[in-house]
Amino acid sequence: MPSIDLNADLGEGFGRWTLGDDEALLDIVTSANVACGFHAGDPSTMRRICAAAVQRSVTIGAQVGYRDLAGFGRRRIDYDLDELRDDILYQIGALEAFCRVAGGRVGYVKPHGALYNTAAVEEGQAGAVVAAVRAYDERLPLLCQPGSTLARVAVEAGLTVVGEGFADRGYRGDGTLMPRSVAGAVLYDADVVVERAVRMAVDGEVVAGDGSVVTAPVGSICVHGDTAGAVRLAGRVRAGLTAAGLVVGPFVTAA
Amino acid sequence: MPSIDLNADLGEGFGRWTLGDDEALLDIVTSANVACGFHAGDPSTMRRICAAAVQRSVTIGAQVGYRDLAGFGRRRIDYDLDELRDDILYQIGALEAFCRVAGGRVGYVKPHGALYNTAAVEEGQAGAVVAAVRAYDERLPLLCQPGSTLARVAVEAGLTVVGEGFADRGYRGDGTLMPRSVAGAVLYDADVVVERAVRMAVDGEVVAGDGSVVTAPVGSICVHGDTAGAVRLAGRVRAGLTAAGLVVGPFVTAA
Amino acid sequence: MPSIDLNADLGEGFGRWTLGDDEALLDIVTSANVACGFHAGDPSTMRRICAAAVQRSVTIGAQVGYRDLAGFGRRRIDYDLDELRDDILYQIGALEAFCRVAGGRVGYVKPHGALYNTAAVEEGQAGAVVAAVRAYDERLPLLCQPGSTLARVAVEAGLTVVGEGFADRGYRGDGTLMPRSVAGAVLYDADVVVERAVRMAVDGEVVAGDGSVVTAPVGSICVHGDTAGAVRLAGRVRAGLTAAGLVVGPFVTAA
Amino acid sequence: MPSIDLNADLGEGFGRWTLGDDEALLDIVTSANVACGFHAGDPSTMRRICAAAVQRSVTIGAQVGYRDLAGFGRRRIDYDLDELRDDILYQIGALEAFCRVAGGRVGYVKPHGALYNTAAVEEGQAGAVVAAVRAYDERLPLLCQPGSTLARVAVEAGLTVVGEGFADRGYRGDGTLMPRSVAGAVLYDADVVVERAVRMAVDGEVVAGDGSVVTAPVGSICVHGDTAGAVRLAGRVRAGLTAAGLVVGPFVTAA
Repeated sequence: MPSIDLNADLGEGFGRWTLGDDEALLDIVTSANVACGFHAGDPSTMRRICAAAVQRSVTIGAQVGYRDLAGFGRRRIDYDLDELRDDILYQIGALEAFCRVAGGRVGYVKPHGALYNTAAVEEGQAGAVVAAVRAYDERLPLLCQPGSTLARVAVEAGLTVVGEGFADRGYRGDGTLMPRSVAGAVLYDADVVVERAVRMAVDGEVVAGDGSVVTAPVGSICVHGDTAGAVRLAGRVRAGLTAAGLVVGPFVTAA
Repeated sequence: MPSIDLNADLGEGFGRWTLGDDEALLDIVTSANVACGFHAGDPSTMRRICAAAVQRSVTIGAQVGYRDLAGFGRRRIDYDLDELRDDILYQIGALEAFCRVAGGRVGYVKPHGALYNTAAVEEGQAGAVVAAVRAYDERLPLLCQPGSTLARVAVEAGLTVVGEGFADRGYRGDGTLMPRSVAGAVLYDADVVVERAVRMAVDGEVVAGDGSVVTAPVGSICVHGDTAGAVRLAGRVRAGLTAAGLVVGPFVTAA
Repeated sequence: MPSIDLNADLGEGFGRWTLGDDEALLDIVTSANVACGFHAGDPSTMRRICAAAVQRSVTIGAQVGYRDLAGFGRRRIDYDLDELRDDILYQIGALEAFCRVAGGRVGYVKPHGALYNTAAVEEGQAGAVVAAVRAYDERLPLLCQPGSTLARVAVEAGLTVVGEGFADRGYRGDGTLMPRSVAGAVLYDADVVVERAVRMAVDGEVVAGDGSVVTAPVGSICVHGDTAGAVRLAGRVRAGLTAAGLVVGPFVTAA
Repeated sequence: MPSIDLNADLGEGFGRWTLGDDEALLDIVTSANVACGFHAGDPSTMRRICAAAVQRSVTIGAQVGYRDLAGFGRRRIDYDLDELRDDILYQIGALEAFCRVAGGRVGYVKPHGALYNTAAVEEGQAGAVVAAVRAYDERLPLLCQPGSTLARVAVEAGLTVVGEGFADRGYRGDGTLMPRSVAGAVLYDADVVVERAVRMAVDGEVVAGDGSVVTAPVGSICVHGDTAGAVRLAGRVRAGLTAAGLVVGPFVTAA
């Protein structure tokens, strides 16, 4: 029976500020991308999320981002590439401490926000991400978009790449996501989203906005938890995948 | 032959800003207290120091501090104790990543600045430091002042404590350091400093400002590198300890 | 007809993170304590709040705090007092830029969180707050608790002090607030809160938890907006004050 | 008699960290670009520099930068343009507080680092800088490179632009600076630097690396203070300009 992972961004508050419903998502996803303190996340939140994830056998991933709390890691920064590699290493290590305390481990790495988008198309920043993961532990999988520059650079460097799909986002014919400013960039109809999730998981395909069929082999589908509606939709996606006969489970084991 | 460790604070710059002569000190000390990014230190500096330390078989310690770059960790912060513990865990983990990449490991923990001073006298913050070290790895030694609250709480919790001495600082009769504002708080005469270092290392004693002899069993002596004079003095202390027949070596091995 | 001001903390988000319903509160209060970026608040939020406040003739105050985003300014920091004064000056100036752009001005200063509480009882930090306000503009009123050390130091220095009352908080017999950990520290019954607000505004009195009557001459009553219930309660307080024949208006004019 | 201004970046330390010899430069320059806390600079340093500048009748300018202490403002950040404008306004206002306390005022604005370079070639960020200055005070001059996009956008918006020259930097034929990685990008020969400064000031010309003569009408020449040699060179430039019959004075008066 084919298997598919569900991932979500978690622990994206900072100190007094919270974002999204971490607890609810932890009951739905099989992989948790935990923010590591550079674009969001603080040590006590990291500790709590790691403990809760280990308790539920949810795999923990390092959601690494730019050092930019004010911009939530969503603004491209023209990093010196060695410094970017080192900022990523720092974040992975910090998260590992809380995994260790909780009885788990960092299971994978996923870049966040502008780093995700930049490394998807730029050789330089893709290389910095890959260098960090390789230096830390070359067996750690990297979660990123199939067909991206990051995916290619990672594979060339011998890393394991897990393709990520976005069931609630519109795709362009070339396999990239439609920008949020475009109509159809975000899908809200639960039936449509579930159907797309199943097709991604079973056939590795998604229908683009122009009607063409994009090949997108994915090992994990990203869901969101920033609104009550998002959490509900995430639950629907999980139920739909199970109903379609898929095993919903992590792409790497939790510990 | 008795053995004594020499430690110094390293990597205390931040980005464009540097502080002290890290390279020179790495050739003198046997243990490096590496700043972990909260009061000072940045990922690329941490990487460089860790690599240089491993190359010289200098043991790496996590110099953990308050989250206060603007105050260099020198202002007491009335932390929630769980958050303090988690901030410390985060820093240890971040440093571990660079140790790992360099082929080493975090060998011990030493609090910095106001955290050092506060945990020396307050049960609460001492407990937070101890809780962090225990949760991370209960075999990690803690470097702190003999006779302090932190030393006592750590020993009670089953941690290994290594006593630290300050050969270039004046002591009070109760074993605490004279505040820097007082005359005699900092000693500059190299002969005097070397003699005090040797007596600390051999007899576990230091003469206080009031003439009394303080018992201070130390496993490590702290030297500084913020000025050219400080580096020279550190070299003199090392030479003096060797001349007195002591083996200068780390209290825990580097890897 | 006697007059009373209503104030609330506004603009306490940071970047991606928001807190409270600023828009709703701006329709209720007559003075807005705008966070200035050190414990909360970011430039774009400050700009928006200032523009919205000027539009409604709500007076703008500088809600100055410790440099501690991670702790939301709620942890006492043992600042060097000159540095504290300068941190406060910096924040007032930054806010003034957005007031100026909006066609208004900084109308008063109110310390936030741990700075509020510390300056209420410590001569040193109270002096730093007063020194900042005097250096900036000695005609700026300071909003703080009547009877506090800060109020006394400010008056002695020739500043105008406006007493602040908390209608939804329990008082102790000595006029200080009951700590939040104590039962009765926060009042939720709207009728009770309104009644206390009116008595504070009309008679300058509040009944303490021990039944004694505390004299607390207040020129402004603080309301909150962090929950929908809090906003509703704030509206009830305003309506109650008006119904009691009080003019609800700012203690200094907006521009 | 023609007049020329000398400017330098000052106050670029942060907390415990210092950079350059501010005191020495204040005796040489006629305009001080004071860092405002986002890429460098802290409130107490700003206060000291402003007081020292006012005492010497040195004009104070707001050296505004990206919010990036870790990168010293030298990494391009893909800001939302409204947020960039607001970050700049915040910095100008904060500096104004210290000018006011010192009895002076912000006399002009100069972008720092990557903001300087980006606004020199990009319409968007140039517009954000111009919008901030116009909103704050449309009479404030902007110090920037002649011929840059920023200079053009500023003039179109009705701002006063003062052209800046770099006597110790190599130019390309198109009037832009040679990147630091290229041989000849930085000039160290004092005689050459002085001669170029005089020609810039008197004729508005500089000889480019390719031998062509670039027209660069400058009202101010930038000098540096990060090394003892730099301070000496700055003094030589000032002496050389005076010897050539120029009046060395600020382009706007200090108060």
